Amino acid sequence: MTDLADLVRTTDLAELQQWLAETGTLDIAEELARLDPSSMAVPFRLLTRDRALAVFEALDPYHQQQVLEGLRDDRYHQLVEDMDPDDRARLVGELPAKVARRVLAGLSDEERAKTAALLGYPEESAGRLMTPEYVSLRQSMSVADALAKVRRAGEDVETIYALPVTDDQRHLRGIVSLRQLVLSPPDRVVGDLMTTDVYQVHVTDDREMAARLVQDADVLALPVLDSEERLVGVITVDDAMDVIEAEETEDLALHGGSQPLGRPYLSASVPALARSRALWLLVLIIAAAMTVNVLSFFEETLEAVVTLALFIPLLIDTGGNSGAQASTVVIRAMAVGEVRFSDLPSIIWREARVGLLLGTMLAAAMFVPVTLFFDSDIAIIVSITLVVICTWATFSGSMLPLLAKRVGVDPAVVSAPLITTLVDASGLIIYFLIARAVLDI
Amino acid sequence: MTDLADLVRTTDLAELQQWLAETGTLDIAEELARLDPSSMAVPFRLLTRDRALAVFEALDPYHQQQVLEGLRDDRYHQLVEDMDPDDRARLVGELPAKVARRVLAGLSDEERAKTAALLGYPEESAGRLMTPEYVSLRQSMSVADALAKVRRAGEDVETIYALPVTDDQRHLRGIVSLRQLVLSPPDRVVGDLMTTDVYQVHVTDDREMAARLVQDADVLALPVLDSEERLVGVITVDDAMDVIEAEETEDLALHGGSQPLGRPYLSASVPALARSRALWLLVLIIAAAMTVNVLSFFEETLEAVVTLALFIPLLIDTGGNSGAQASTVVIRAMAVGEVRFSDLPSIIWREARVGLLLGTMLAAAMFVPVTLFFDSDIAIIVSITLVVICTWATFSGSMLPLLAKRVGVDPAVVSAPLITTLVDASGLIIYFLIARAVLDI
Repeated sequence: MTDLADLVRTTDLAELQQWLAETGTLDIAEELARLDPSSMAVPFRLLTRDRALAVFEALDPYHQQQVLEGLRDDRYHQLVEDMDPDDRARLVGELPAKVARRVLAGLSDEERAKTAALLGYPEESAGRLMTPEYVSLRQSMSVADALAKVRRAGEDVETIYALPVTDDQRHLRGIVSLRQLVLSPPDRVVGDLMTTDVYQVHVTDDREMAARLVQDADVLALPVLDSEERLVGVITVDDAMDVIEAEETEDLALHGGSQPLGRPYLSASVPALARSRALWLLVLIIAAAMTVNVLSFFEETLEAVVTLALFIPLLIDTGGNSGAQASTVVIRAMAVGEVRFSDLPSIIWREARVGLLLGTMLAAAMFVPVTLFFDSDIAIIVSITLVVICTWATFSGSMLPLLAKRVGVDPAVVSAPLITTLVDASGLIIYFLIARAVLDI
Repeated sequence: MTDLADLVRTTDLAELQQWLAETGTLDIAEELARLDPSSMAVPFRLLTRDRALAVFEALDPYHQQQVLEGLRDDRYHQLVEDMDPDDRARLVGELPAKVARRVLAGLSDEERAKTAALLGYPEESAGRLMTPEYVSLRQSMSVADALAKVRRAGEDVETIYALPVTDDQRHLRGIVSLRQLVLSPPDRVVGDLMTTDVYQVHVTDDREMAARLVQDADVLALPVLDSEERLVGVITVDDAMDVIEAEETEDLALHGGSQPLGRPYLSASVPALARSRALWLLVLIIAAAMTVNVLSFFEETLEAVVTLALFIPLLIDTGGNSGAQASTVVIRAMAVGEVRFSDLPSIIWREARVGLLLGTMLAAAMFVPVTLFFDSDIAIIVSITLVVICTWATFSGSMLPLLAKRVGVDPAVVSAPLITTLVDASGLIIYFLIARAVLDI
């Protein structure tokens, strides 16, 4: 595939034109995102209005911002005006206040009002995610009337595939799909076609919860209600998918022990990357300082039998690993809604037994080699410690995410690094107590 | 919310009936999944045919199987017959051969043929994921003809919202949306309405790649072609979302250092959970055995200065943590298609500098306390080691996932535990070499 960067550098517009004509919207967006900010607008100016919009919508807010910076005002305002209100709200929400004002200023009153309304809802809420543009029907309408209304109003709404049915107070009565309308005789009544088993969320609900509901319910659009239970918008499946991806990326970052970047990896600067990880590393190293204290407490034991030091990394690694295994699986089960807090007792009981099984297996595996290379005392100490540490680590690794959620902390912050560090200090205490007992010193 | 388990235990059918009537499909499915296998079929028999199908489709294949086991043959076959071919293929694909035969045997020839065709494609392929049922149009059709065909053929296909346009060799010419048809005058020609900038995959393509394409392209259905470039099916957005969720769950399990369960967490037995983690723990403890060798190599140094042992956990934890941070972020960026192998040089150069920054920060943070509680020599050793270990860990943590993918290994297996363990041995060597140099022993 031709390198867009080269085309832009050589500024051979004809060739660039041709490349743009031959390349799909997504690929253009992907290549654009890899250009340095200064030159992102160049190929963009050569795109037709519709194509430009399509490519722009395929970019993440971070790169959208960079494109805008390079565009002349008319092009700039046209582009923002053409966006869907929800996408525009997402973009404006991430812009610096000054730029945001410039964007809103250029909008038609109608579009500005729509965006302002969405921006009024809290960040990460369903209200921010929804589009306020939808076609709603009435129960009394015939299929023919309904289709007529869809034709009149359908041009400029984001989706017409799921059509909310409301009463005059805009209370949601049901949903009818465009499919049902198209496949039904024109004289059928909407009220008889619509499904009343409707999933819905409120503007202040969490956006991830809403997005996962779209996924679980297999709906193309999810109605969003205000505090008076009136329909104010719908969340479309494409936006739901984007939210889920963004949330997973965030959780993974947390789970890996760093703050979410909030922007594409390659576009984050070295200091930005460092900042996103510095805090956690500091917290963890301070926690790890406990291990220094524990070890200095047992220093005589160490001096007496230096060999004990040799197994410290192996034992704490194993503890950390089995803890990480348990926490990862439990956190995921929570994220996809498989387990609830009420499952806590059964989960830790299961996991404790899993840990015991695994610890016993590892102990058995290590006993003979350690006996051969060192001696049976050390082998006994290491083996018993493995059993206890694995059980303890698996137990706490499975419990902590649930407790975190209970006290309102994102379970994903119960990261593998965090578990490892927490289990280490306790693991060392276990190790040396067992050592002292066996060697009776 | 009433506990379904109680209702089933008391076997008060009237009350159970009522609960089922008042509860949404999704909630019923969720509660069903929490019953013990034996009683799952009880509430199920009370559902109407349509409701039963809806609930059944909301269950994962594992619980679908348990429901089937409890149903009488007629109900059983009716249910499987009513499923979409792709959902049925997914179910049959996960059933034991014997049960699978029973399912297929009960099907009508038509449905059996469809399922068999899908099962002919490799697991995890786009072919397995697609539905072979779609309505295709011709370029020459008028909108009126097209809508007429949709009405004729639309009843029993999974989606009619994205309509592939093909020629007589079933080659894909474009796609037209039901929305375009409904909003266009009846005399317009499909060929003029359809978009030709169409994303498509082949039956043998990886299903995750296909699913992510559905997400990135914001399409409701993705055409799937066979090796002769003929249209054989479409992948719908709901199936794409399910695949992405399943793949994320798998990656997370691997990333946490365990084999994917392939079934809901709560439904996995203790031995099954232990099995899914045993292999990795063994691999990792064997890798960790390296650390024992490294330390025994430096045993005299340790005997000379036992204090050095006190910082072993803190240093290897920090190395493991910064390595885990880097690998997690890079793996995610790869999963969502932000970075490619060709980015390797720029990534490791970025990450090495990030590691240097972070290491320097931690060194600065530790220097004074360590000097106070121990002595300046130890402080110097610990600080220098932190700088080197962080740089080294971040460097390898960012490089390994890309190398893994290059050699065809799932980057997700470059788990936090794996990085930690690998970095430990090298980290200890670094530590003791620096210690020897500073203390010159």
